[in-house]
Amino acid sequence: MLARLLRPKTTVSAHCDLPCGVYDPAQARIEAESIKAIIEKYQSNDDPVFRARALIIKEERSQLVKHHLWVLWTDYFKPPHFEKYPQLHQLFNEATKLAGAGGTKGTLDVAKADELLAKIDEIAKIFWETKNA
Amino acid sequence: MLARLLRPKTTVSAHCDLPCGVYDPAQARIEAESIKAIIEKYQSNDDPVFRARALIIKEERSQLVKHHLWVLWTDYFKPPHFEKYPQLHQLFNEATKLAGAGGTKGTLDVAKADELLAKIDEIAKIFWETKNA
Amino acid sequence: MLARLLRPKTTVSAHCDLPCGVYDPAQARIEAESIKAIIEKYQSNDDPVFRARALIIKEERSQLVKHHLWVLWTDYFKPPHFEKYPQLHQLFNEATKLAGAGGTKGTLDVAKADELLAKIDEIAKIFWETKNA
Amino acid sequence: MLARLLRPKTTVSAHCDLPCGVYDPAQARIEAESIKAIIEKYQSNDDPVFRARALIIKEERSQLVKHHLWVLWTDYFKPPHFEKYPQLHQLFNEATKLAGAGGTKGTLDVAKADELLAKIDEIAKIFWETKNA
Amino acid sequence: MLARLLRPKTTVSAHCDLPCGVYDPAQARIEAESIKAIIEKYQSNDDPVFRARALIIKEERSQLVKHHLWVLWTDYFKPPHFEKYPQLHQLFNEATKLAGAGGTKGTLDVAKADELLAKIDEIAKIFWETKNA
Amino acid sequence: MLARLLRPKTTVSAHCDLPCGVYDPAQARIEAESIKAIIEKYQSNDDPVFRARALIIKEERSQLVKHHLWVLWTDYFKPPHFEKYPQLHQLFNEATKLAGAGGTKGTLDVAKADELLAKIDEIAKIFWETKNA
Repeated sequence: MLARLLRPKTTVSAHCDLPCGVYDPAQARIEAESIKAIIEKYQSNDDPVFRARALIIKEERSQLVKHHLWVLWTDYFKPPHFEKYPQLHQLFNEATKLAGAGGTKGTLDVAKADELLAKIDEIAKIFWETKNA
Repeated sequence: MLARLLRPKTTVSAHCDLPCGVYDPAQARIEAESIKAIIEKYQSNDDPVFRARALIIKEERSQLVKHHLWVLWTDYFKPPHFEKYPQLHQLFNEATKLAGAGGTKGTLDVAKADELLAKIDEIAKIFWETKNA
Repeated sequence: MLARLLRPKTTVSAHCDLPCGVYDPAQARIEAESIKAIIEKYQSNDDPVFRARALIIKEERSQLVKHHLWVLWTDYFKPPHFEKYPQLHQLFNEATKLAGAGGTKGTLDVAKADELLAKIDEIAKIFWETKNA
Repeated sequence: MLARLLRPKTTVSAHCDLPCGVYDPAQARIEAESIKAIIEKYQSNDDPVFRARALIIKEERSQLVKHHLWVLWTDYFKPPHFEKYPQLHQLFNEATKLAGAGGTKGTLDVAKADELLAKIDEIAKIFWETKNA
Repeated sequence: MLARLLRPKTTVSAHCDLPCGVYDPAQARIEAESIKAIIEKYQSNDDPVFRARALIIKEERSQLVKHHLWVLWTDYFKPPHFEKYPQLHQLFNEATKLAGAGGTKGTLDVAKADELLAKIDEIAKIFWETKNA
Repeated sequence: MLARLLRPKTTVSAHCDLPCGVYDPAQARIEAESIKAIIEKYQSNDDPVFRARALIIKEERSQLVKHHLWVLWTDYFKPPHFEKYPQLHQLFNEATKLAGAGGTKGTLDVAKADELLAKIDEIAKIFWETKNA
């Protein structure tokens, strides 16, 4: 029951550069969850065709994580946020790097996907603090 | 406090056609929320350049709603679901039409965006029932 | 009669969501023909680089088939069509699934591409009946 | 003879750069038909929102015409074709220009869409001659 | 003569996330130059169709500027660079904002395009210093 | 010092179909440089995952080369240019083919990337002659 209440239905929000004013770190997290699942499936399936497909799709999904994070960093966060959370720039830089060649694009290590998810959660925590402020 | 618990952080999930097994109607809803906000901003701002930009972006966001719903309909839902929920096909067809020319692409009526959101919520309800089954 | 046979060439038509009113199942079929050819070439060429490229491209082409079919289902077909052809929803759902992970994306079986082509032809038959009605 | 008339429907074909060996000028023609219909609808509807949407979509469709023609020119046609049909280069250059700023992108003149269609038909005629050779 | 030597021919370089190791701020600058030209043409042409097209294209080009800058910030620059140039994070954040709603997307002021170009040049200066280090 | 002056900073220029009037062969060359670097990295790294990623990315980058060249051929060059440089059509056709299945898409031979780069330089030479004329 509580699980059902925890569903994203009521707070989802996004991001276009009108701007519509709607943003949500969930977009990046959804893709990162997908990446983690892809890596797990890759590790437990040694069919070469399946694995090639997993690599193709993981590449795309990692790019989407980067894109959604970049949008938050440039479009949602404003100078006062960066003043209040001086670690934000580095946090975003590290998170997007974790979805790149040195991160989930280049590896098949599920720990790397977990690092990426943790970093997105750090960003999400700050995001919701500023949103609810 | 409860509000913070309701955040999407823990259940977000998605959708690639590996398949990764991760899906979430939140992706469609996020874009639909964005469309609603765009329409509201359009209605309260008569600058022609702003309005032209709103139309351009609303077109893209509506297309994204359609895409995310199509993915759920084809990739997530399976024959047993369609048997259990015989209204599903029509529901998806109506929802995607509501993001098209006869819906949020073609109009600037906020009620149309609300209809789309309600339809997505109907789909989400069924989605979570099948997910938790 | 002959006029109908001559049809495709002169009336080729499509699909944008203005809507322009121009639609044609040929768009999906063209991509499905391409998929079949890719699978055949993959089967008769064991160079690993060629095969990797075939997998990358087959993934894209399968996605295009899904896209073109989704557009027909949502944008071209209207409630009266679904009443007259109650099998349409399932037909489209099966056809798009045949271009997905359980279909031409996930396999290298030319029979799967043939199934997809046959399903598209069933849709095309209904499409032209409604178009000429 | 009749066989040739029946051609498009059964052999529709395309174009990926594996190459799959499947090409068809119908892809460009479908988009050009769409452009013509968009212009006609624009001319008979003076609602500014509809017209803005028509311009957005016409821009995309014109780009697709260019893309499909470029693919034929680079990927399908080979040196012997260009020797046999020395006008081919200019034909493609003119056709793609007709879908650009000086053509269907920049104007709302239905005659321009007709010129584009005629040019695509010239290309298609040569295409089918080489295909059947 | 010197002008010809100054051409980009020999040093252009780029950026994919293999990574290929090839990056170049010229990619962002090219799009920003395009934006400036679009704004100038918009200001000197009051045809509403031309202006609508200018807005559509300016939106795309501004997005490309953001994309190329994000790639440099995440993929090219490494921790030692951020230590040596502590202003880099803010510089990139401001530059990408200048290509967004509060910058070249939202305005038709040529001064805004000049600000964006100047910011890209600041980034380029640092880029080449690190590249030649 | 001279090396720094030779940087592309001052002359980069581009290309949209407004048209903005800004074009630059550097865009194609940047992607071709990237392709060459990808091939070199592929040849010196036999990790199968790295190699699969290299193939995926090389496919995209080759497509971008084709796109940038097509834009120059259709949008920048005008009839008087084709009269003055009768080899231009063939040059572009060969260059785009060199980025296709018979060129950098289909091979991992660094000599093919060099041929592509040389062909782009021939085009660039003519481009700048017409630009400075």
